[in-house]
Amino acid sequence: MKLFYYPGACSLADHIALIEAGLAYQLVSIDHEKRTGDGRDFLALNPKGYIPALEMDDGVVLTENQVILAYIAEESGKLLPEDRLLRWRTLEALAYMSSEIHGAYAPFFRDFPEPEKQRAREKIEKAFALLADQMGDKAFLISSEMTIADCYLFWVLMVAPRSGVDLPANLLNCLKRMRAMPSVIRALEEEGLS
Amino acid sequence: MKLFYYPGACSLADHIALIEAGLAYQLVSIDHEKRTGDGRDFLALNPKGYIPALEMDDGVVLTENQVILAYIAEESGKLLPEDRLLRWRTLEALAYMSSEIHGAYAPFFRDFPEPEKQRAREKIEKAFALLADQMGDKAFLISSEMTIADCYLFWVLMVAPRSGVDLPANLLNCLKRMRAMPSVIRALEEEGLS
Repeated sequence: MKLFYYPGACSLADHIALIEAGLAYQLVSIDHEKRTGDGRDFLALNPKGYIPALEMDDGVVLTENQVILAYIAEESGKLLPEDRLLRWRTLEALAYMSSEIHGAYAPFFRDFPEPEKQRAREKIEKAFALLADQMGDKAFLISSEMTIADCYLFWVLMVAPRSGVDLPANLLNCLKRMRAMPSVIRALEEEGLS
Repeated sequence: MKLFYYPGACSLADHIALIEAGLAYQLVSIDHEKRTGDGRDFLALNPKGYIPALEMDDGVVLTENQVILAYIAEESGKLLPEDRLLRWRTLEALAYMSSEIHGAYAPFFRDFPEPEKQRAREKIEKAFALLADQMGDKAFLISSEMTIADCYLFWVLMVAPRSGVDLPANLLNCLKRMRAMPSVIRALEEEGLS
């Protein structure tokens, strides 16, 4: 499989998941002209033009972070709880982080006017407060075991400080703990960010 | 199961899905003080405070539109293709509509300044153009069979005209076709919108 990525972008979640899942993968970067690192037109592969995108060995390209993460979990049989309710809670957390946090980062990524940034900070901090309640003193968001929700959580937490978003203490501790995990260290190194 | 809803809000997608799936359900409205139609505090049931939320018979409350739709499909064995790739394409379309269209409707729902509305229209129309390509001349978005992606598609299409968003011809036809489906007619009637 090939994971199309930008260094430090939300594709980092999938990158960490691929490592944790033990699946073979190849990282392929995209340049400013939307050419892939292996010399192809990214828009022809993925008309959405954004990452992450996962190209399977048969050439099928899957998009959308939550869905790629779920695919990695299904392929590997890892990173999703066996318990049915906890599995729904994992998918629910992914959808929540996507719409309430990731989507709300747009004003920072695209440098929108300050009032939009401030409104976004309030929305994001409200969402992190709810995730902090959900995590409590567990090692990971859903249970004591890592799930694909934690892969995405790491990325939305990593982006918070540079956006002026304050993090609750237990989530800040989670960010620190995850940054020390071998899979996260390796992913950051492979993206040239260590 | 109880579906918490506002008339005409995005919970309509789940409402249509419940009807198509043939599952027993009860509709429960939420008032402006976040009291449920059956006399409870909605924030105690769902701290996110937004709809849709699905309360199962054992009291578990599931949130996030995409996840509730997937739950309805799994419970009923309907509305998700058996073909594995088409199943991923269905989930992918749900995630795409959530982040690129539903999320982008916020400036209209909350009456943000006009420049934000115009930026949102451009984003939404770009996303609909891609969905129009995906649909082509099929009866539904993913295949000739209805899926949970179509339940959500109906709602994002229904909201477009009042937000000043232009729809491609095949999606406008899809909106008209779906509006004539018995499940959609019944859902709109039950929400007092017929």
